[in-house]
Amino acid sequence: MNAPEVVVTEYLLGLEAAHPEVIEFNQESRIIQRRSLPSQPKVGLISGGGSGCEPMHSGYVGFGGLDAACPGEIFTSPVPAQIMAATQRANMGRGVLYVIKNFGGEIMNFGLSAEIMKRKGIEISKVVVNDDCSFPADQLDRRRGLGATILVEKIAGAAAERGDNLSQVTAIAKKVIANSRSFGIAFNSCTTPKLGRPIFEMPEDEFDIGTGIGGDRGHLRSKMVSADDIADILIKQPALELDFASNKRLIVLLSGLGSTPSIELYTLSGIIQKKLESNGTLAVRTLVGNLITSLDSFGVIATFLIADEELLELYDSPINTPSLRWGR
Amino acid sequence: MNAPEVVVTEYLLGLEAAHPEVIEFNQESRIIQRRSLPSQPKVGLISGGGSGCEPMHSGYVGFGGLDAACPGEIFTSPVPAQIMAATQRANMGRGVLYVIKNFGGEIMNFGLSAEIMKRKGIEISKVVVNDDCSFPADQLDRRRGLGATILVEKIAGAAAERGDNLSQVTAIAKKVIANSRSFGIAFNSCTTPKLGRPIFEMPEDEFDIGTGIGGDRGHLRSKMVSADDIADILIKQPALELDFASNKRLIVLLSGLGSTPSIELYTLSGIIQKKLESNGTLAVRTLVGNLITSLDSFGVIATFLIADEELLELYDSPINTPSLRWGR
Repeated sequence: MNAPEVVVTEYLLGLEAAHPEVIEFNQESRIIQRRSLPSQPKVGLISGGGSGCEPMHSGYVGFGGLDAACPGEIFTSPVPAQIMAATQRANMGRGVLYVIKNFGGEIMNFGLSAEIMKRKGIEISKVVVNDDCSFPADQLDRRRGLGATILVEKIAGAAAERGDNLSQVTAIAKKVIANSRSFGIAFNSCTTPKLGRPIFEMPEDEFDIGTGIGGDRGHLRSKMVSADDIADILIKQPALELDFASNKRLIVLLSGLGSTPSIELYTLSGIIQKKLESNGTLAVRTLVGNLITSLDSFGVIATFLIADEELLELYDSPINTPSLRWGR
Repeated sequence: MNAPEVVVTEYLLGLEAAHPEVIEFNQESRIIQRRSLPSQPKVGLISGGGSGCEPMHSGYVGFGGLDAACPGEIFTSPVPAQIMAATQRANMGRGVLYVIKNFGGEIMNFGLSAEIMKRKGIEISKVVVNDDCSFPADQLDRRRGLGATILVEKIAGAAAERGDNLSQVTAIAKKVIANSRSFGIAFNSCTTPKLGRPIFEMPEDEFDIGTGIGGDRGHLRSKMVSADDIADILIKQPALELDFASNKRLIVLLSGLGSTPSIELYTLSGIIQKKLESNGTLAVRTLVGNLITSLDSFGVIATFLIADEELLELYDSPINTPSLRWGR
């Protein structure tokens, strides 16, 4: 990078330059927005969060995804001014859905913006993604929004694109959240631009269990284990909470945390799929890549979504964003 | 990973499990092949190389790309038996193009396979990709095949898909090679599965210039510089050899070497695009990601291709592979 102060701006400029047909960087409002609004008014979708988690969320703006994304500074929530600008951009008269990850700053700033926007006559609906099941179910407030956020943006984005109204799009988003769980692990700490060194030290033969994004460390430390054992750790709690045993079809998302190479991600996703199959559950769709990250962290987040026909159809429908593209 | 001996196989199984509609892992022949051959016979395209460079080449198999890929062991060329099996799979009676990167083992094993396949009556054509211009032009034999390999597979793949014959597809591939140059740098060494530690040591405030894939280190060491200066290093030699000054339109590919996060890749690609523009050259297409890698190396390879109308049209045409997908 050139300097910590400009890293986010330079990233946003680079994203715009690489995908000019899909998105644009509105520098005045500091948001990434769809290059052109659809010809038919539809429900708007916006999201936002601390930078450092790329391609979340700016990489998911475009046809079939978000209408605008609000990037905060590194690991810092976006401010209300950004969220309100994104709301106004995304509002086509049919209301706007806020996709909020369960982090204090996001809940506060999206909540505040929603109140102000409602007073201006824009219909706002909110969903809070909290798929992280590394915290026990009686600590719901600590469950962060992780990989399910991408699935909400993809699937609710498709519902908006096909013409669903705000309450329908919101219901789809809530259905995705209710049927999703994630679990993360990491082998190191990321290095933040300002600090210039890892946030914490991790011995080479250990790893963290329950890792999130935004530099969040795990809340359990373990000695190194095999890929098979890591797959077991990632599957265990989601399988319990989503009752894999009686739900036969899943969408599985395996995201690296920023620095995890393709060969290791596919190795692990293959092991996960095999374990699921041997228990009678099928990953009918699998998405693998560095999709929701924590700067240069080396680790993974596995996300599981119980997939019925409706969710599968919406998942499969076309999308054209910098980081997810199919059918167009 | 579970164990060094199974890492490649587990990766290939994972890739197949995640993309069953596009590719399949032929375990007997140890190749990744298109799930289904096209209804109209077309020219076949195959490639191969040492594993550890994922998604190269297995991630580029599918509609509009390769018909089969031959993964060797980590950083080791595929063997003739794999290449011959891939040839027979890809042969639809209109001949097969071998996309070979300029590494000794690949040239030898693809060459040997070509001779045997020709004797069996299959028409074979070969191109050797040598876009690495970090070595001077009088050391052509040392110029490795880097990012241009992806562009050859995409663009010649599209030519085959539209029905071009073997000599036409070969001519397109050669045109891409003649008009492409790449340059790489890296901030560390990768860690190989067998060794379990970096191949070489790199002080934190230094980096290598002229880095390749397959664990190849650079051939010049430098003190750390800014992203602006790195962009200059990556552009300089390609600009000279491709005469950017009189060629106004480029396809630019910026690949991480395996562990380079999205935020840093787009930051750098944005800087590169801006520098090109200020010199009157336009990156009309930009592809950013960990596209050709060297296990978990942290670094980048920048690839530039002079784009005329024909190459742009072929680049833009639909592709559906695990790692590149658009228009379908």
